[in-house]
Amino acid sequence: MAKDKKLVESITSRDVDFAQWYTDVVKKAELTGYTSVKGCMVFKPAGYAIWENIQKELDRRFKETGVQNVYLPMLIPESLLDKEKDHVEGFAPEVAWVTQGGLTPLTERMCIRPTSETLFCDLYAKDIQSYRDLPKVYNQWCSVLRWEKTTRPFLRSREFLWQEGHTAHATAEEAEERTQQMLNVYADFAEEVLAIPVLRGRKTDKEKFAGAEATYTIEALMHDGQALQAGTSHNFGDGFARAYGIQYTDKDNTLKYVHQTSWGMTTRMIGAIIMVHGDDDGLVLPPRIAPVQCVVVPIRQNAEGVLDKANEVAAALKAAGILVKVDDSDRSPGWKFADQEMRGFPMRIEIGPKDIENGQCVMVRRDTREKTVIALDDAAKAAGALLETIQKDMFERAKAFRDAHTYEASDYESFKNTVEEKPGFVKAYWCGERACEDQIKDDTRATSRCMPLGAEAEAPEGAVCVCCGKPAKKLVYWGRAY
Amino acid sequence: MAKDKKLVESITSRDVDFAQWYTDVVKKAELTGYTSVKGCMVFKPAGYAIWENIQKELDRRFKETGVQNVYLPMLIPESLLDKEKDHVEGFAPEVAWVTQGGLTPLTERMCIRPTSETLFCDLYAKDIQSYRDLPKVYNQWCSVLRWEKTTRPFLRSREFLWQEGHTAHATAEEAEERTQQMLNVYADFAEEVLAIPVLRGRKTDKEKFAGAEATYTIEALMHDGQALQAGTSHNFGDGFARAYGIQYTDKDNTLKYVHQTSWGMTTRMIGAIIMVHGDDDGLVLPPRIAPVQCVVVPIRQNAEGVLDKANEVAAALKAAGILVKVDDSDRSPGWKFADQEMRGFPMRIEIGPKDIENGQCVMVRRDTREKTVIALDDAAKAAGALLETIQKDMFERAKAFRDAHTYEASDYESFKNTVEEKPGFVKAYWCGERACEDQIKDDTRATSRCMPLGAEAEAPEGAVCVCCGKPAKKLVYWGRAY
Repeated sequence: MAKDKKLVESITSRDVDFAQWYTDVVKKAELTGYTSVKGCMVFKPAGYAIWENIQKELDRRFKETGVQNVYLPMLIPESLLDKEKDHVEGFAPEVAWVTQGGLTPLTERMCIRPTSETLFCDLYAKDIQSYRDLPKVYNQWCSVLRWEKTTRPFLRSREFLWQEGHTAHATAEEAEERTQQMLNVYADFAEEVLAIPVLRGRKTDKEKFAGAEATYTIEALMHDGQALQAGTSHNFGDGFARAYGIQYTDKDNTLKYVHQTSWGMTTRMIGAIIMVHGDDDGLVLPPRIAPVQCVVVPIRQNAEGVLDKANEVAAALKAAGILVKVDDSDRSPGWKFADQEMRGFPMRIEIGPKDIENGQCVMVRRDTREKTVIALDDAAKAAGALLETIQKDMFERAKAFRDAHTYEASDYESFKNTVEEKPGFVKAYWCGERACEDQIKDDTRATSRCMPLGAEAEAPEGAVCVCCGKPAKKLVYWGRAY
Repeated sequence: MAKDKKLVESITSRDVDFAQWYTDVVKKAELTGYTSVKGCMVFKPAGYAIWENIQKELDRRFKETGVQNVYLPMLIPESLLDKEKDHVEGFAPEVAWVTQGGLTPLTERMCIRPTSETLFCDLYAKDIQSYRDLPKVYNQWCSVLRWEKTTRPFLRSREFLWQEGHTAHATAEEAEERTQQMLNVYADFAEEVLAIPVLRGRKTDKEKFAGAEATYTIEALMHDGQALQAGTSHNFGDGFARAYGIQYTDKDNTLKYVHQTSWGMTTRMIGAIIMVHGDDDGLVLPPRIAPVQCVVVPIRQNAEGVLDKANEVAAALKAAGILVKVDDSDRSPGWKFADQEMRGFPMRIEIGPKDIENGQCVMVRRDTREKTVIALDDAAKAAGALLETIQKDMFERAKAFRDAHTYEASDYESFKNTVEEKPGFVKAYWCGERACEDQIKDDTRATSRCMPLGAEAEAPEGAVCVCCGKPAKKLVYWGRAY
């Protein structure tokens, strides 16, 4: 077994070098690959299959709220990008420019979409005339490109996959409602499916999206104590509508500007899954997102009847709706165990001649390594229940970790010490001034992750800014972030 | 009713001006839209929903044959594109070039992928070392860009959506088998799901893909008698492997080149559905691809109990797995009928106070307008059966049309007359020389669509080329094409 295990090359320990551990897992679990296109990654089958499951589940949730999918061009003419001032300032420095089409130089250069607000505005300006045309609740699944200088698989790459929802509404209230509704869709998805607990909050003006009136965010905590922005939902008010001339005739026969939102979630979430749940043996996938939920490993598979029984058990699991795979390759059982663990499939079933004699099999959880002996007749039912338990436990464990790594600081010294010595979220009051945010970032590399929603966000009487000591306005979650 | 009908603007008759009819249908059925990005289209919800159904069904069929999905970068460095001579000559004139990333000019320009053979080769060269790494059967769903001068929605646009499969095999036999297997997946999908009969054949050297040893194709006939290439599958032999250095160590410990294939189907298929099945009232969707299969239209919907009963019928259909929608908008029944017909939803159910009194409803087929009175208790079962019948009849009708528009010609005069006067396929023998293909195209605008597979392709003793009169080698299906 010790020798077998080596066949699956070992990875760096998570607590020794988190960044290297991440790189190792991504590579050894065969999630990504490289081509000669610098800064862009390849999603290999194991990585793309996770994204397909994210898409399927998120898309279903979107459609339940009335979202319709569309597809818009990947190119944006420069003049179109230029129309909304904040937006162009935010994105122009990081887009890729197409200057030649076929053999002819273009009269106007076009960028590859870094995001598609401008194109949706262009479409809405043409398609929206009357209140009858509202609301528009469109979404697209596509890739976008931002010319990043330093890149890391899933977390930051020049091209990434995402969905971007873009909506137009008759009233400001309806737009705000949609903005928060989608934030909640993201939060529920992250917690229920990915088993990743998230803070729901609002970004400060410094951190909000280029062109937005308000940006809402869900923030997750990775195992190394760094935060990761996991999904954002923006309320644009009528800013884009004014810049792009999107008006409708209301029931009272007056011309009004629409109110818009946009919201997105990306392949970054795969990075979050790795960094929240992974361990020193590799990836650990929550059952609801795993492309394979259970691997059946036959022990002494050449012994009579073993492979047949393994296939029989797998068939029973499959019939119960479990995504199951029999590993009948010519590798040793030890190699297969290590392989299943590296790839993060949530559980395995071991079954050999002795088990068959005793009418049983062994179930092993990926997350805790716990083994249970189960009667063969109960295998499907027990596996289904075990997957549910794993899903629930993974969320609870991640939540306990997050809570244990959320601190409070009331003065600047303890704030700086906490950020430096105790990686995690730090809750601290803030005066609302950009200068203090900048100061905190300069001093600690921590940024404001979000202000909580509702009453919790308001600073109580007498609370002071952790940075400048002046009267505080808001409670902020701070942290170093990916 | 006549007045209501006008509310859904009428479209040009299919037999008066086919091109205008097509444009009208695409617009009035709200399949596509425009932005200021020239040559690129917007897939609106009604159009994109058809593509989603194509994806779902095709992807399921792919995976049954062992295909794994991946995602590769959208940009290709010029030096990578340049490696395979025929390929670069075929594509370089029609790609878009990125010359600047962020604020910096690129040292090497990159094109937006017109297709991804070069990138897959780059990946395979890195990932394939041993016979154990084979086969690779990868596919990606993405958009590609080709700088077309004249464009038409779905049929030809600068950016379009597609899937591209790219495989690598140990032997030439295995590659050829995969090439034909995927051709058959396409053909079965087109016939069984889209109700579009297709010819399966092989392209002449002139018409084959840039860099391929052999290109197989499925060819469909549109209602105006023009052909449409509906899917292609290419066998590259080891040409790309030699250009990109993709070698593996075989079991006998020698180094060998892999054999590769690629195959693709695009959003063009939506154009094919329109042009094969549509009629003067709009789109006609085959039930198996329709986003909505049945529209329930309440008659006098404000009368007591009507809307309740309509919803009840819809619920019964939904429970039976039918995609159903109740049109309870404030439009008249006539407007709703015309709207359902324009959008091509395969059937509708009309239900009013008198029907309810009699415990019945009226089912109307979109394809034939045939009406049937059905007992309310039987509605779900009858609707399911009717959808099956519609699917089958649509295929049979399209096949009868195709067969009735397939001609033979043994001399050049009758060949030219047939192409000119009887739009459709013309079967004629060919000597195998490029010069005759060019001549035929110059004289008639017809191109060789395909050579049939198997024995049918071989010209019998004594057969002569329809163009030059010299001894013939192959039977070819000719036609003008989209």
